Amino acid sequence: MIVFLVPDVSPIQLQHLLELLQKHGLHGFQTEFDGRTVVLTTEIRSGYCANTPELQAALSDIPGIEKVVRVAEPYPLVARAAREERSRVQVGSLSLGNGTFGIIAGPCTVETEGQTLLTALAVKKAGANALRGGAFKPRSSPYAFQGLKEQGLKILAKAREETGLAIVTEAMSPEEVPLVAEYADVIQIGTRNAQNYRLLQAVGKIRKPVLLKRGFGCSLEEFLMSAEYILAGGNQQVILCERGIRTFESFTRFTLPLAVVPELRTKTHLPILVDPSHATGNGDFVIPMSAAATAVGADGLLIEVHPEPNAALCDGRQSLTFDEFEKLVRTCERIFPIAREEFSG
Amino acid sequence: MIVFLVPDVSPIQLQHLLELLQKHGLHGFQTEFDGRTVVLTTEIRSGYCANTPELQAALSDIPGIEKVVRVAEPYPLVARAAREERSRVQVGSLSLGNGTFGIIAGPCTVETEGQTLLTALAVKKAGANALRGGAFKPRSSPYAFQGLKEQGLKILAKAREETGLAIVTEAMSPEEVPLVAEYADVIQIGTRNAQNYRLLQAVGKIRKPVLLKRGFGCSLEEFLMSAEYILAGGNQQVILCERGIRTFESFTRFTLPLAVVPELRTKTHLPILVDPSHATGNGDFVIPMSAAATAVGADGLLIEVHPEPNAALCDGRQSLTFDEFEKLVRTCERIFPIAREEFSG
Amino acid sequence: MIVFLVPDVSPIQLQHLLELLQKHGLHGFQTEFDGRTVVLTTEIRSGYCANTPELQAALSDIPGIEKVVRVAEPYPLVARAAREERSRVQVGSLSLGNGTFGIIAGPCTVETEGQTLLTALAVKKAGANALRGGAFKPRSSPYAFQGLKEQGLKILAKAREETGLAIVTEAMSPEEVPLVAEYADVIQIGTRNAQNYRLLQAVGKIRKPVLLKRGFGCSLEEFLMSAEYILAGGNQQVILCERGIRTFESFTRFTLPLAVVPELRTKTHLPILVDPSHATGNGDFVIPMSAAATAVGADGLLIEVHPEPNAALCDGRQSLTFDEFEKLVRTCERIFPIAREEFSG
Amino acid sequence: MIVFLVPDVSPIQLQHLLELLQKHGLHGFQTEFDGRTVVLTTEIRSGYCANTPELQAALSDIPGIEKVVRVAEPYPLVARAAREERSRVQVGSLSLGNGTFGIIAGPCTVETEGQTLLTALAVKKAGANALRGGAFKPRSSPYAFQGLKEQGLKILAKAREETGLAIVTEAMSPEEVPLVAEYADVIQIGTRNAQNYRLLQAVGKIRKPVLLKRGFGCSLEEFLMSAEYILAGGNQQVILCERGIRTFESFTRFTLPLAVVPELRTKTHLPILVDPSHATGNGDFVIPMSAAATAVGADGLLIEVHPEPNAALCDGRQSLTFDEFEKLVRTCERIFPIAREEFSG
Repeated sequence: MIVFLVPDVSPIQLQHLLELLQKHGLHGFQTEFDGRTVVLTTEIRSGYCANTPELQAALSDIPGIEKVVRVAEPYPLVARAAREERSRVQVGSLSLGNGTFGIIAGPCTVETEGQTLLTALAVKKAGANALRGGAFKPRSSPYAFQGLKEQGLKILAKAREETGLAIVTEAMSPEEVPLVAEYADVIQIGTRNAQNYRLLQAVGKIRKPVLLKRGFGCSLEEFLMSAEYILAGGNQQVILCERGIRTFESFTRFTLPLAVVPELRTKTHLPILVDPSHATGNGDFVIPMSAAATAVGADGLLIEVHPEPNAALCDGRQSLTFDEFEKLVRTCERIFPIAREEFSG
Repeated sequence: MIVFLVPDVSPIQLQHLLELLQKHGLHGFQTEFDGRTVVLTTEIRSGYCANTPELQAALSDIPGIEKVVRVAEPYPLVARAAREERSRVQVGSLSLGNGTFGIIAGPCTVETEGQTLLTALAVKKAGANALRGGAFKPRSSPYAFQGLKEQGLKILAKAREETGLAIVTEAMSPEEVPLVAEYADVIQIGTRNAQNYRLLQAVGKIRKPVLLKRGFGCSLEEFLMSAEYILAGGNQQVILCERGIRTFESFTRFTLPLAVVPELRTKTHLPILVDPSHATGNGDFVIPMSAAATAVGADGLLIEVHPEPNAALCDGRQSLTFDEFEKLVRTCERIFPIAREEFSG
Repeated sequence: MIVFLVPDVSPIQLQHLLELLQKHGLHGFQTEFDGRTVVLTTEIRSGYCANTPELQAALSDIPGIEKVVRVAEPYPLVARAAREERSRVQVGSLSLGNGTFGIIAGPCTVETEGQTLLTALAVKKAGANALRGGAFKPRSSPYAFQGLKEQGLKILAKAREETGLAIVTEAMSPEEVPLVAEYADVIQIGTRNAQNYRLLQAVGKIRKPVLLKRGFGCSLEEFLMSAEYILAGGNQQVILCERGIRTFESFTRFTLPLAVVPELRTKTHLPILVDPSHATGNGDFVIPMSAAATAVGADGLLIEVHPEPNAALCDGRQSLTFDEFEKLVRTCERIFPIAREEFSG
Repeated sequence: MIVFLVPDVSPIQLQHLLELLQKHGLHGFQTEFDGRTVVLTTEIRSGYCANTPELQAALSDIPGIEKVVRVAEPYPLVARAAREERSRVQVGSLSLGNGTFGIIAGPCTVETEGQTLLTALAVKKAGANALRGGAFKPRSSPYAFQGLKEQGLKILAKAREETGLAIVTEAMSPEEVPLVAEYADVIQIGTRNAQNYRLLQAVGKIRKPVLLKRGFGCSLEEFLMSAEYILAGGNQQVILCERGIRTFESFTRFTLPLAVVPELRTKTHLPILVDPSHATGNGDFVIPMSAAATAVGADGLLIEVHPEPNAALCDGRQSLTFDEFEKLVRTCERIFPIAREEFSG
């Protein structure tokens, strides 16, 4: 259960509650959620939330409680039941979730100022709502180009100044989080760090939106548990991003399981983004799969765009040209209202 | 290479061609395609089509040849290059492919005449173009209900009479093909028989459309090779149906890899159907995944509909009610024109 | 439940039992098992065996019943509980299961009499217990060499005459079963036909051992259900063969999940064979994986051997030379006693 | 190419080499390997090692070079060609690789001093070569028990004192590495951190052996690239650990693809460990799968053992009792000599 405390809960009331839980053999995990102090009734070993009628009864007389929400899932704050409304993440030019649709676009890697500004202007003109670009790049080879690091962050900040677009970029370790948070509007956690719990804890402590990618080998439950790590730290602005899973299918780099979108709508209140660029690894599939992701009810898209895909330092084959991106936006803008009408509510 | 012979090719010309191929160490596989006799230049062991410049040169002087089409794929007749236009399968009320969109709907299993007619009328009214229903049912348990067999076929025929809808139903073995073909407009080959080569050969010999489902463990190339078995027999009316693959994802029964649709558009001229009912195994996902399949460029949908899903003899959980199916058709009708405009051509 | 009837059960007793089941809303599925007539108490739609206490009580007074065995699994005759002892399949030179270990070896395809006899003599000398070789070949391409068919069966019969080795070869459709059964000692059902139910029914009607391969996309339960189709027909001599599944792993053709062996030992009484040749698709892995399969408790191995692997008509890359096969046998003969001691009983 | 420099290479010689590579458009990546300074000839963007004949020729005259080793793989230091002999990791009681076999056993989690010492004594007596136990635990739930942290490390150190067993325990982030390295003999990198590149870089800088688990969704190449990150930092003592991958198979938690062992033997000189406890998630499979892993040629095993598996704080179902572990050791000790004889060399 999520126990929401009253705004003016006293330290003694809180202590009383925690002691009561202890008597029931439970740990009261305390954090902030929706402007309230909340206490989760967790089982000590497994971390599951206790929801028994006995506990419910025991809590009914305790002073300082505003309301108690029962959740069956092992990710209480992320669960659909935790909030009445679906969440919307709003930062600068980007608004995403609960009826608004956002497109985040840009190059895989920040290579130069020119390439980045050119792309930022082009995707803005086409209708993108935020700029993505990697400054710290997780590369499978230790000898491959690892990104421009802080210099890349500065270029991104300049692109924001020029275009007004919110900036989305990745942090790869707890120590990088403060630096990246200084420049970025949204901090991305990549698929390879989807279960890097120390990193998740680190972004749970800041108060900026986090774009969390699904691990390509992770189950949906593991994905939501990773999001729970961030919310447990008190950071409620999380965007979930499906980017494809590993299967035997080999004509695409990964397989994009779009049923994840309606499934997540029933399991969580968090907004759901789809990344067809990494999911397929092939620009030829990005427009049709973006159309499909929009039609299935996604709250937004993450798209790789590059001025010259064939000359990109990284992942060029999956990047769109400016013209292709414009076509993508035009198509998705036509499909989104149909999807919203049919599936929302 | 596919060697298209002139309409009035003489037996001697044909013999000459076959002997020439033999001299090159090749087998000339002879069949009918697009109203012509064609000869495939196959390597004897592997079956791959030879495409060498030497062979090309050798064929240039042979009389009786209309044109020679080079194909790199191991499925020459199915390959995109085999035909200039994309294929369209047309039978009775159903037209599917090359710009037309078809919806085939109905119960998993023909249970009674009443249930079947009721469903046929409802799906027709909602906008379906053909009726599906199983008379011969491949069940994983030998003790489970195996279908009404010929009685089921008769009920389907009656439903066609009443509604004008074309009938799609499954055959499970070579011996069943003639009986099923007597009643059905389209013969379905199920996912478990996707590599039942004797069955594929049997439906290759008839001249009725075949709806071929992808094996849930098969690669795309294996899928297209299975289709090639049917075309090699001279039956060119094949509809490919993606119905989901086995992956580690467990919240759906299978995983629907929608990038298959744009991939197949580049690999083959055959029309592409998507079956979201079996792919997800859950009616809650069928409308959004149908919208996605339409947006990604599918030529049609295969949908399970039942008057009372919870009372169905088989696979009820994945069936839609009549109202849900109507909503599905309405949604897809709005998305299809957008998809056609963007992706066709 | 499996209801075993007394040897001299009368038709009237049987009829009485079936009527009683009908009153309970059940179908009494009648077949032969372990020298008895047995009746399975199946639920009509799903085919699941009913095991309720009420049914148990109702059966207690019925004359003509020898014993009643409760099985929880949907594959009652295949389930471990159906028999007290593990099964052993014995035919000619081959004995496999319940403490005996058998190696079936030979070429993928019967190409010529010379190649087949040469291989048969070599594998016999090395210690093989049976000869495998394909006469009807399921090839993914319709244009590839499809096997020598009956001529191949005759060559195999000649090899049996010369070496005394039992013959294992495949049938691909119900119509082929009688012909193959005429020549073969064990009829193989290939992975692509693992859910070809009409074929399973056809081999259920004969009284020769069947080697059933797991479908490469099938779950273990589906595999056991396919075996149940054969036993339901009265044919109890089934050998289960694990041959690898499709996963994202790409350095081998399939992935060999050896934990299947101990799992099957608890789920079924049937003997368990492992085919490392098809599982890996690479001769370099066949000896170590055979050693592993023996160590994990398999009852036998199915191994591809060819006089000149590089010249094989089919699947040469995964075949062993005679010398390699001899090394394989020598290794497995040393490991098997250790495995039997540790895991049997 | 790996350019091995002479022991007394001068700074000027080194500078000359790096400038030469730059002229070829390459980056000379400098590190320590096998007691030498080595320079890798890496392509700047992709990180691939250049191996062209031109480069070879250009290097032939350069002073200060001891030898040049060509490697085709993108993981030059990890590749089999980098060393003449297979590697052996030796630390305290543990020796593993190149003909020696090591068993690392212990509880998933260090719970109490008593539980840990009891287990350490028992596994030592049974024949284990090192003790494993988690002090920092990566748990999927943020609310689950996260390990005793430094207190756990102290308990492990005490167990080493009492038994002489080397200690293997996990670090989860770069910041934890120094603390863990202070207590541990081998630092484990878990499956969820298999592509946490900052962590890999951190353990690349220390000079203690690292046990690197394969990511459950990672390809073999990605696994070896992760190991390359560690060797690139100058730490050459890496043990690779296969612990199962995600597939559609659901009767085990993961699928253990044992062909990985012979494949890794050809691809890398590093020792190969197998973890059947996490791979199967079920103690019933651990003995047979350990026997199989030994037979297939693994250099060692990682086994979970607990005094009372059912009372374990974490992953109890997959732990062995002391008696079971003793049986495991006895079995593997009999199989290992057979495997070494057949597959080594």
